[in-house]
Amino acid sequence: MPELRHDPIQKRWVIIATERSRRPSDLHVGSSAVGDAGAFCPFCPGNESATPPEIMAIRPPGSHAGAPDWKVRVVPNKFPALRIEGSPDREAAGVYDRMNGIGAHEVIVETPEHGTSLADMDYRGVERVVQAYVARQADLLRDQRFKYVLVFKNHGEVAGATLSHPHSQVIATPVTPRTISTELTSAREHYHLKERCLFCDVLAQELQAGARVVWSDPMFAVIAPYASRFPFELMILPRRHGHAITALTPEEVSGLARVLRDTLRRLKIALGDPAYNFMIHTAPNLDYEPRRVTFWQTIPWDFHWHIEIIPRLTQVAGFEWGTGFYINPTAPEEAAMFLRGIELR
Amino acid sequence: MPELRHDPIQKRWVIIATERSRRPSDLHVGSSAVGDAGAFCPFCPGNESATPPEIMAIRPPGSHAGAPDWKVRVVPNKFPALRIEGSPDREAAGVYDRMNGIGAHEVIVETPEHGTSLADMDYRGVERVVQAYVARQADLLRDQRFKYVLVFKNHGEVAGATLSHPHSQVIATPVTPRTISTELTSAREHYHLKERCLFCDVLAQELQAGARVVWSDPMFAVIAPYASRFPFELMILPRRHGHAITALTPEEVSGLARVLRDTLRRLKIALGDPAYNFMIHTAPNLDYEPRRVTFWQTIPWDFHWHIEIIPRLTQVAGFEWGTGFYINPTAPEEAAMFLRGIELR
Repeated sequence: MPELRHDPIQKRWVIIATERSRRPSDLHVGSSAVGDAGAFCPFCPGNESATPPEIMAIRPPGSHAGAPDWKVRVVPNKFPALRIEGSPDREAAGVYDRMNGIGAHEVIVETPEHGTSLADMDYRGVERVVQAYVARQADLLRDQRFKYVLVFKNHGEVAGATLSHPHSQVIATPVTPRTISTELTSAREHYHLKERCLFCDVLAQELQAGARVVWSDPMFAVIAPYASRFPFELMILPRRHGHAITALTPEEVSGLARVLRDTLRRLKIALGDPAYNFMIHTAPNLDYEPRRVTFWQTIPWDFHWHIEIIPRLTQVAGFEWGTGFYINPTAPEEAAMFLRGIELR
Repeated sequence: MPELRHDPIQKRWVIIATERSRRPSDLHVGSSAVGDAGAFCPFCPGNESATPPEIMAIRPPGSHAGAPDWKVRVVPNKFPALRIEGSPDREAAGVYDRMNGIGAHEVIVETPEHGTSLADMDYRGVERVVQAYVARQADLLRDQRFKYVLVFKNHGEVAGATLSHPHSQVIATPVTPRTISTELTSAREHYHLKERCLFCDVLAQELQAGARVVWSDPMFAVIAPYASRFPFELMILPRRHGHAITALTPEEVSGLARVLRDTLRRLKIALGDPAYNFMIHTAPNLDYEPRRVTFWQTIPWDFHWHIEIIPRLTQVAGFEWGTGFYINPTAPEEAAMFLRGIELR
């Protein structure tokens, strides 16, 4: 019997229909390949002039901006979805609303090595990438026009990557995105009702039950969410309640790098280097939000930051687009059990 | 300058970033091919025994159930996402909620001809398909366990189709899906504020402006939505306010068949037979809904049914999954102008 499960964070029903996984087409691994093999790579060392000037870089002592001996390099996206100059100028357009596409769109080049993905790096390498995530969040949140800063990664062409050199992206937006608003509302409502954090409650229940836990250490837990939309969907949660990645201690940054790298490596070994997306869900702009008189005023601190990882193994079809709920052919308990058994090498 | 546009129906911001369409990877036509060429087709006439027994069929006079001379045939999905037997049995699972996966999952085989898609059929053939959509809605809504009935179509493998023989699907669910709830809420709030239908207001503004109108006749209008998520996304709206396709007159069924077939044909000619999804958004179960004391009690009649069509031309990546808003490289005004210029042949 298929089962309907409700996600209290996204307020979304999901159909867990494991009988359907017998259809071979339901679970084919989206290749992580990107169709740019042999092409000129603008992210490789020595090609720095092919990108806009760097915003920041992590470099060895003695190195300087523009030199090719960087370890992590952040540059503006050459084809930005949003522009940094100007003001939003919100206005009505009859029954609609519009504003200028103000924001930031940056690329974080994760490593000078073209062929080394996060799953293959050493912990120190991933730690530098996480340091860059935190630094770009903190810097962009200083801009009062930006209400939200999203750090995310597309790995593989079916996940939306257009360049194969390992990179993450940062987009700062002048509105709080709907998905985040839903999570903030859920967290606020739960806190209002229970005086507890919703995510802390979820985490406590998961750690006690164990069936959906892939990994846990004193700082972080990796779980397959109860109402997973997709096979092998994962969530990395900090065990200490915190609303934003900008408030991480250096030890937590190291710990996050370890758990992120190991989780991606587990997926790579288990599923044969699948295409995936991950997104860091952190609080919206606190400098901005408290000034609003209503609704969100006290919210951001009720939020509990986390990372969502989505391997791209199934097609999203008309049912999902038409309803906003999902049919998942793999029970999260099975996914977690399988991933727990993977030996990291 | 990119532009942010707000969809008052889905309460969703979209980034219209036309500069990005210069990247060739941003707009590649998802093939409508399905990898089952040469394989046994369970939907072809003569193979009726390969599917579960038919639920209904449209047949010439004198024909009988099981005979191979049907025109449209509706059968249960052999791998259903939801099961017809049982009761939902809602219950708590700690901080979560669950229920049994009760519902219906049917396949509407649109034609006996394996290679003839809706875009290629004559009007009479598409009319029979629309008649089947209406009949299945009406029949499934009699079941008090089902709160919503979604009719949708996946055309092409990247749109989620696994069999190439032209078919649509019907899924009846024991909860009102989130996407529909959002639209119902928007319609209710707008009616509360203005005492007018939100969709009627959108339609009036679009018909007056004209820039996003692909087609209009006395019964229907086809528009590229102001805040389109995807290139060439379209919406078919009835000009007469109506909450559900089950209330269509026979003339409106014919009119809908014509506009649906012509719109799909326009997309096929313009974009080279792209993969697409369409979903019919109609009111939830009225037999059920009025019994609830709160919230939706008077809503369904404020709703305005419509069809959403989504050609699958771009990848959905981490930004979209992480935020619920979309980057669209093609302005809907350009898409509408291009489609208006297509000569139907």
